[in-house]
Amino acid sequence: MKPGFEEREIFTALMAEYAMAIDDNRLEDWVELFDEACDYRVVTRENAEQNLPNVLIWCDNKNMLRDRVESYREVNLYNLHYDRHVLGPLRFLTKEGSTRTFEASYSLFQTELEGASRLFSVGKYRVEALVANGAARLKSVTVIADTGLIPSLLATPI
Amino acid sequence: MKPGFEEREIFTALMAEYAMAIDDNRLEDWVELFDEACDYRVVTRENAEQNLPNVLIWCDNKNMLRDRVESYREVNLYNLHYDRHVLGPLRFLTKEGSTRTFEASYSLFQTELEGASRLFSVGKYRVEALVANGAARLKSVTVIADTGLIPSLLATPI
Amino acid sequence: MKPGFEEREIFTALMAEYAMAIDDNRLEDWVELFDEACDYRVVTRENAEQNLPNVLIWCDNKNMLRDRVESYREVNLYNLHYDRHVLGPLRFLTKEGSTRTFEASYSLFQTELEGASRLFSVGKYRVEALVANGAARLKSVTVIADTGLIPSLLATPI
Repeated sequence: MKPGFEEREIFTALMAEYAMAIDDNRLEDWVELFDEACDYRVVTRENAEQNLPNVLIWCDNKNMLRDRVESYREVNLYNLHYDRHVLGPLRFLTKEGSTRTFEASYSLFQTELEGASRLFSVGKYRVEALVANGAARLKSVTVIADTGLIPSLLATPI
Repeated sequence: MKPGFEEREIFTALMAEYAMAIDDNRLEDWVELFDEACDYRVVTRENAEQNLPNVLIWCDNKNMLRDRVESYREVNLYNLHYDRHVLGPLRFLTKEGSTRTFEASYSLFQTELEGASRLFSVGKYRVEALVANGAARLKSVTVIADTGLIPSLLATPI
Repeated sequence: MKPGFEEREIFTALMAEYAMAIDDNRLEDWVELFDEACDYRVVTRENAEQNLPNVLIWCDNKNMLRDRVESYREVNLYNLHYDRHVLGPLRFLTKEGSTRTFEASYSLFQTELEGASRLFSVGKYRVEALVANGAARLKSVTVIADTGLIPSLLATPI
């Protein structure tokens, strides 16, 4: 039996949860998708292609993600916009040991409280994930944003 | 064998058909995806989160869906715009008996006859569905639209 | 065992590679997804529905695709924009012999070098594909663009 569809199910479910946790403003649930030893960063595609060191966000362990969400909760008592991610299908790359690398394109829309929706960012995720104790976990998520005009003080993760 | 990927296939196929039936202007096919005892409603996220009773559309059985499509056909002799749904991956929630609950984010674009496409609405579906006699059927679809500026006399379903 | 999820995996992976190859500017890889005897065309939905013969792009074998990409490389020394496809789930249609026909909706965004992203086109793919020697291959891809305002001298494929 080809294992392809089983992996697609597991990691598609993981990314569906990733996106919906942010969009539902369940950022604490989003953090819990990561392994303790993890890496989350947002870079622009231009910087990624030119190997420039600039990053818009960089958290290199889970406690930094926790801190980030906690700060966000303190500053933003009210949700100022709604996020909405629509992700494309996963493209699987390498598998080293139990770590699976894959990519997925995203479109991210924001809706202001006045009710109008607009395109906020498009790009792709490059993800390293594994399955441990029956649960899929994120080891590393790099958001490579095509859109270069993203405010560096991003309120919510992408 | 984990049943996850089989359910993902069945209900992903159902939602692909749901979206394409609307986009192809095969609204009668869209109605046929629902069970006789069904519920279809469109609400805004703001109302959903505040538990307000406002709904933009509400059909609480299949005959109401049939009537709605029939009225639409009588009024709109020509298609005035094209719809295009792009759905994200399904996020599975509970399973009670044979009823599966899941969510999926959507982006909905409209194209005017002049040829320009624009973002019309983003949001998510919350769906209850089941498999009966080998076919997947929709028991309940709630469209929770992030976009609040949707005309209440929606021509085509979301 | 229902073969549905295995086919969904194979052809979803194929379309994920299709989209990512274009978006990564790996157009040579994109060509390699096609069979030698293949057909690629871009039409508008209006023309498709009225059975008009107009096509925006038409390559009726793989060498034409190779030529097209080669010309593109000669003319465009630098990438003038980034493409980003976000595809919806596949809707399977007929299966004749080993050839599978399916459709998928797409949203295509472009990002200028200044960094702003915008919606470029939405529509759907109608695809004929098969699995030969363990690899999925494209026999025919028809891009049916809802958006009518696409420049006829398209730089990159859709």
